[in-house]
Parts: sequence; C-alpha cells; structure tokens
Amino acid sequence: MTDPRFERNEMMRTDQNHNNDEDETRYPDGTVKLRNPNIELMDQDILYHLALGSESHDLVEMFGDVKFVCMGGTPKRMQDFADYIMKEIGYKLPTGTTLQDISRYSYRYSMYKVGPVLSISHGMGVPSISILLHEMIKLMYHAKAKDPVFIRIGTCGGVGVDGGTVVISDGAYDPLLNNYYEVPVLGKLTSRPAILDKKVIRELKALADVEDPYETVTGKTMCTSDFYEGQGRLDGAFCEYTETEKLKYLEHLKEFGIVNIEMECVPFAALTHHAGIKAAIVCVALLDRFNGDQVSTPKEVLNEWQVRPQKLVAKYIKRHLQMKGKFSLDGHGSMAVKSPRRFKLVQQESQTFE
Amino acid sequence: MTDPRFERNEMMRTDQNHNNDEDETRYPDGTVKLRNPNIELMDQDILYHLALGSESHDLVEMFGDVKFVCMGGTPKRMQDFADYIMKEIGYKLPTGTTLQDISRYSYRYSMYKVGPVLSISHGMGVPSISILLHEMIKLMYHAKAKDPVFIRIGTCGGVGVDGGTVVISDGAYDPLLNNYYEVPVLGKLTSRPAILDKKVIRELKALADVEDPYETVTGKTMCTSDFYEGQGRLDGAFCEYTETEKLKYLEHLKEFGIVNIEMECVPFAALTHHAGIKAAIVCVALLDRFNGDQVSTPKEVLNEWQVRPQKLVAKYIKRHLQMKGKFSLDGHGSMAVKSPRRFKLVQQESQTFE
Repeated sequence: MTDPRFERNEMMRTDQNHNNDEDETRYPDGTVKLRNPNIELMDQDILYHLALGSESHDLVEMFGDVKFVCMGGTPKRMQDFADYIMKEIGYKLPTGTTLQDISRYSYRYSMYKVGPVLSISHGMGVPSISILLHEMIKLMYHAKAKDPVFIRIGTCGGVGVDGGTVVISDGAYDPLLNNYYEVPVLGKLTSRPAILDKKVIRELKALADVEDPYETVTGKTMCTSDFYEGQGRLDGAFCEYTETEKLKYLEHLKEFGIVNIEMECVPFAALTHHAGIKAAIVCVALLDRFNGDQVSTPKEVLNEWQVRPQKLVAKYIKRHLQMKGKFSLDGHGSMAVKSPRRFKLVQQESQTFE
Repeated sequence: MTDPRFERNEMMRTDQNHNNDEDETRYPDGTVKLRNPNIELMDQDILYHLALGSESHDLVEMFGDVKFVCMGGTPKRMQDFADYIMKEIGYKLPTGTTLQDISRYSYRYSMYKVGPVLSISHGMGVPSISILLHEMIKLMYHAKAKDPVFIRIGTCGGVGVDGGTVVISDGAYDPLLNNYYEVPVLGKLTSRPAILDKKVIRELKALADVEDPYETVTGKTMCTSDFYEGQGRLDGAFCEYTETEKLKYLEHLKEFGIVNIEMECVPFAALTHHAGIKAAIVCVALLDRFNGDQVSTPKEVLNEWQVRPQKLVAKYIKRHLQMKGKFSLDGHGSMAVKSPRRFKLVQQESQTFE
C-alpha cells in the first residue's frame, strides 16, 4: 500500500475495535442487545424501510423464532430462495395460504419468512444494505430472536476464478484494501473492523459437495461502490485507463488474495460484527474478470448458477435445524400430497375445465 | 474545514476538472458523445441492469425521442410519476395498451416511457444510482437522443426546513462537505466535480407557484452513504453520540448552507456533469431533522408530499415541450373520453354486472 490516504486513515480512525464480549451485544438468554441506549427509551421505533414498527406490530410474535436471516440483491432471487428453503426444510404453509412479501408497503425491500428463516432483498451497494442491516439488527432486538445468523447470498465478479464458481468470503476489503468499514459520523470518519465468522465459514466450506460440477472456494472479497470504473471495467460510460492497466490491477488484487468483487461485503461484515451477530457471505461468480467485463452468459445458465450459493446455505440451515431437533416443523401444508402422480393428474384434469 | 483528510484529498485528487466543452461530450447534432473509446469498438454493449442491449434492441427506435430522464428511489413512485406525466403532457396510449416496466427482466430498476419522458427508479444510495447513471448515459448515446436533461425526483431530510418543503438543490456535497465525487479507480482515488445545471435550477425555481401551501427553496444538499449514523440519527442499531452533539452537527451543516440531506446527489451531479448532461434535483423534505429522526407523518400526507416535486418537474417538462411545439403528442387514447360524466356512468353500470 503506497496510497498515503491509507496511512492517514490508519492514524485517524477512531478506535472502534471493541471486543465483542457477549455482555455488550447479548442478554443472558441469547437475545440481541443493542449498542444504542436511545431505542429502549423511545415510545415506538418505526423500521421505516421495512414497513414495520415496534408498537404497531407484535414483533416478538411475528419474528421471535427467527434463526437465519438470508439476504441477497434482488426481490426475485430472495423470493426464489424462500420457495426453495421451504421445500428443503419441509416447512408447510396452512392450507389456502401462500408466502407474502412482509415489507411490500415500503416499496424498498422484499421480505419473506419461512419458519425460522427470513429471506430479504438488500438492493445494490453499501448504503442500501447498511440501511437494511440497521433495521434488521433492530428487528432482531425487538423480536427477542436468539442468536440469529446473517448470511448474504450474492453474485460477484471472479478474480482468477471461472464463472459459476461459488466463493465463501473469508475477508472483506474496500477498494484501497482496508478491511474496515469507514463511515463519516457527525463529520468525522469512524471505522469498524469488517470481520466475518470463522466457524460459519469453515462449516459452509465443509458442506460443499466434492461431486459438484463446479468449485467452491474461500478467499478475500473486495467491496466497491461503483460497478464500472470502481471495478476496473472498460465498458462504463467513462473509461480513462487501458486494458493493460486494468489487467495489471486485477493481477495486483489476485496477489493480495482477492478472489471476487462485489458491492456489499464490507458493511455487511462490519455492522454484523459490531452487533455481535455471526455472519457469512456466499456468492457465485458470474464471470472471471480476467476474461472480460460484460456478463454475456445465457440467462438460463445464470439462473442455474444463482442457485448454487442457495444450495450451500440451505445445507447449512438444514444441518443446524437438525442439530437442534427442529427439522420437522409445525404447520399444515397448503396442499397435502398423498400420491404425487394422482395429484398431478387431478391438477391436469381440472385445468381442462376452464 | 479542519478535517486533515479534506486537505489531503484536495492535494491528492486527480485533476478531473475537465472543461465540458461540447466537442468532448456532444456530436454536432446534439447527440451524446461518450468519454469512453471502448464502447464503439465492442460487438455489442449489454446494459445488464436495464435488461437492454445495443444489438438485441433497436435503441434508436425505442429511445431516440427521449428528452427528459426522470429518476427517483422506488419503482412505485416512478410508476406513479409516469402515470402523472402522461396526463400532464396529454400523451395518449394506443387503445388496449398500458405502460409496462421496460426493465422488468433485470429485477433491479423499473423504467417507464411516456413519449419523450423516461421515468426510472434508482434504488437507494450512491452505488445504486451510479450503476444506473453509467447505463442511462450509454443508453442515451446508443439511442442518439438529443440533449437529454436528467432530473432526480426524491425525498430527503430537511435541515431547518419543514416537512413538506420542496428543495431544489443548487450544490451537492459529501459528508465532509466536499463538492466532488470520489471514486477509487484501479486503487487510486479519482474525483469529479459535482455540478448541477444553473439554468435548469433557475427555471425550476421560477416555475414554483406562490399560491402553493408550502415553500419551494433552493440550497445545498448533502449526500450520505448511511441513513442512520451517517446522518446523525439517534435511532439506528448503533449510536455513540448524544442528542446535543447531533444538534450541534446539524447547526454546523445549516451554517454551511445545507438545507437537506439525501443519499444520491453527489454521483448524480458528478456523473451527469462529466457526461455534459444538464441535470437538476428536486426533493421533498419528509421532516425537519432539528425536530426528530423518525418519519412518523401519516402515509396519506407523505403521499401528497411526494407529488410536490413531481408537479414542479411536470411544469418544467410541459414548458419545454410547448417551447418546442411538441406539446400535442401523437398516439391514440387507450380510452377516448367524449363525456367524462357519461364515461363514468357506463363504467359504474358495467361494474354492477359481475
């Protein structure tokens, strides 16, 4: 690092390197303690971007059982994940019901709940996920959820790894290769270490299937606030460097240990760590940035790739629910299927009578 | 400014203060010239986050007539604006058609087109709007649109102005009160001046109606990447300062001339300016931050407030279309109404026969 700003920041940054002792971030029963004394003094706390409130909604009743908070960029992907995890953990909805976007009135994020799993979209970039994290951490506090684990399920550009590769992040770095999250607070830069949970990372890695026709790797992830120039792409509206300079930069990142680039890992790692919440990030690479900038893989292939991190995270969730003996969940099926063959026949017959 | 980083940045920043002479950003016929020599050498340019491509779509045919690109946070608000501007400029859809989200297959932004007006959501925060701006500037280039004007229609927190006040930004500042956009490019910080168009600002201000039951003001806007600690709120998941310190900070901002805080103005001003595109920002304040942090105004009131910037921008668009004699647009009504009274009666009658 020859960037003088790097050293400057190192010197300047407020010491936020708190030890996350359980007494600071947890009550004895495992529920989340907030590092903000104001919240419990407030009449009500409106989680504006989630369309929920601490006095308007019974958040303990609604979210007290949450164990896993899964986040990803788009509403569509997180709705798909909700459907997928429902099948995987064998969660059944009451007859005549379907999943509904809990935050639909916010018009900002989409949130689905499948028993102990929340599946929620975070939009694109650092500010969008940071708003969500503040409100999700507060939601866990209001709901008295016990030891929730946060997992980001994303897409990314690979740095020396093929498209379709699954990357489990074991470090989160900003574009100047600092592994902390810098936020100007009241006009002064504050930084917080961006740290992911080592145990969750190891468990995820161990769950990868050697039979998979793709690789699952761990490595450092870089977080940028710009998709084009900020990631050294040649195809933005502006470009003031050459392809040779771009490749030299990617080589530099690779030497540092960066294996993928996305746009959310630093605040995700830093804010969860500061709240004492275990967190991990699993992404699929959409391309190897050494081979190009544009994502030109067919949509069907991309859709198959996007399921890969979901499969790994589903395995992790199933394993933990099994360990806790919570695998078989209560509830009635929206459809109770006795014979899949006959079920399909009846459906097909019904459809002919329009 | 006593922050040493400010001076450091001032010294460090690459000189990006190009004069935006028309020959750099415009072809003689007024169409957009890109400051990226790579694009015209590419086989195709996929605007990934818009679900459009330069070879898959006839972008000249689809977007060649665009004069105004209006952006705002949520898909809902921008769909509402599309419906509103359609009525205001008297644009009629062919019988049996309705507006459709052009970018629906991207699952990221929502884009509506009403003749010469595009209405598109940008999500929350700097990265989300910067991706959109890169792709919208390239879209204008591919479409050969002539002299398009970009306008952001947003919501914000007021600094010493009441909730419901309309703010036209006359400057865009980051949290350290720098008026440039800083992007790390290939590991080095690059900055670009964040400059809005003075003439468009004056025109918008002149169009405000003195009879309006609210104020329309101009002033400096601050852009943050965090909604809670980054804006001095006391109600985030974390808070390590007092209310007194918060109020002192807001006072400091007010003295500097900041009248509102939002999360997109700096890249919006900087990227449009760098592309030689005229741009302005009109926001409505949802509250005065001196009086609180939470938005607790009833939804109906907020909805009425959100229409205020739209009304002003609609006036601006109508005025320019009238000046160019383009006010009466071609097309057939999806419903041609002869008598509004009878039209309603027929509708009501029809509805009784279910």
